[in-house]
Amino acid sequence: MSAITPIDQSELEFDHGSFDSAAFARQALQNWQALAAVTDSALLGPDVARDQVKKVCDEAARYRFASALVQPMWVSTAVGMLAGTGVPVGVVLGFPFGATLTSTLRQEATALIKLGARELDMVIPIGQLKSGNHSAVQHTIHAVVSVAHHHGATLKVILETSLLTVQEKLRVAEIAIQAGADFIKTSTGFAKGSATVPDVAMMRGVVGGRCGVCGSGDVRTLAEVKGLLEAGANRICTSAPVPILRELGAD
Amino acid sequence: MSAITPIDQSELEFDHGSFDSAAFARQALQNWQALAAVTDSALLGPDVARDQVKKVCDEAARYRFASALVQPMWVSTAVGMLAGTGVPVGVVLGFPFGATLTSTLRQEATALIKLGARELDMVIPIGQLKSGNHSAVQHTIHAVVSVAHHHGATLKVILETSLLTVQEKLRVAEIAIQAGADFIKTSTGFAKGSATVPDVAMMRGVVGGRCGVCGSGDVRTLAEVKGLLEAGANRICTSAPVPILRELGAD
Repeated sequence: MSAITPIDQSELEFDHGSFDSAAFARQALQNWQALAAVTDSALLGPDVARDQVKKVCDEAARYRFASALVQPMWVSTAVGMLAGTGVPVGVVLGFPFGATLTSTLRQEATALIKLGARELDMVIPIGQLKSGNHSAVQHTIHAVVSVAHHHGATLKVILETSLLTVQEKLRVAEIAIQAGADFIKTSTGFAKGSATVPDVAMMRGVVGGRCGVCGSGDVRTLAEVKGLLEAGANRICTSAPVPILRELGAD
Repeated sequence: MSAITPIDQSELEFDHGSFDSAAFARQALQNWQALAAVTDSALLGPDVARDQVKKVCDEAARYRFASALVQPMWVSTAVGMLAGTGVPVGVVLGFPFGATLTSTLRQEATALIKLGARELDMVIPIGQLKSGNHSAVQHTIHAVVSVAHHHGATLKVILETSLLTVQEKLRVAEIAIQAGADFIKTSTGFAKGSATVPDVAMMRGVVGGRCGVCGSGDVRTLAEVKGLLEAGANRICTSAPVPILRELGAD
């Protein structure tokens, strides 16, 4: 037991810097204001009308969410509504199927940033991943990352974990990081499944401190949020943020 | 009873040319070849892989469907697979939520036509319709129609009827025609509902002979197809076309 243990290269490869999930979760859960600051308020259905955008933007300004996340059609409206509040507008790209041309994603990202979006949430090209075209997946993500970072915007990459095998999840998490993603995110909220604690833990395990992890989808209770934060998420995305904050004392 | 009846202007306004649904249905149902010629074979899920595109294209060539309908990501692949068969490749735009910027739809349409797509199926901007912004709806559809027709492509406009009220269906059908749509189409297949006989009958009633009507979604049996054709559809779109043709004797 006194022999010098040789360095295990495989362990070194997984030392991607540290992220202290427990400390982050404690901080984020200490009051509703802290939780709001790491929560995206999402409004993403196909039949969203202007008055719903208004309501979500009003709430985002009031509770000071990390962002108000809307569809491309509503970015201009939301940016106008949130002007001067300091709350950024996020937007989804190639949503929710991730089956868009790369050239379209680049046009979409550029146009949306010009309209004022500060966070871009793109869905991975799921079909390319399923076909084993890993270089196409990386190329597509990198193309959008380039546009986002050129303009100082944040890029989140939605894996849609419920449609992927474990091997696909591990592979695409690494691809997203190599392509320059700022966050990897679990779910669109429109496939069968949503963020799970094991998925978030696996994603944090892969990325370490190299990028953020966002737990998203049908997240509706403070207990669910707590589980995702303790598993390694540093951002939560939900379409029901206010009831969750109320569990922490918000009115 | 011998007095001359004055012309009823409201009836004149609804005389949009004739479409003989019964005759069309009889012709389309006379054998599987005739039905295939008015049926789009759709492969539109988020996790479609290349081998599935291959299978659908092989079937499209074999049965001679009206088109093989794929996501933007797979247009180039499908065009290559169907080269020389005479079967056109169709593609969906802003799919399935219809919440994309008009500038993005124009870029997407142009890029997809350049890749070889001959039929473009766009989703209406549902949220604009829900917000009463009818001019925005017409502007968006017309922008894509312009690109399509400039290049000789066909433009179908998906209403997503299951998310609309009767008033919204009537209004948007008329808007789509005014904007130049070649077809109005019921459904994406990814909202709750699918093509219904009453919806198709209403759509045909509004458009008369001014454009086509496509019944789409979860259409799985010859009986369903017969109902939609007799109600006024002149195109069917389904992800299960081969079993339906087998009911008509195809092998």
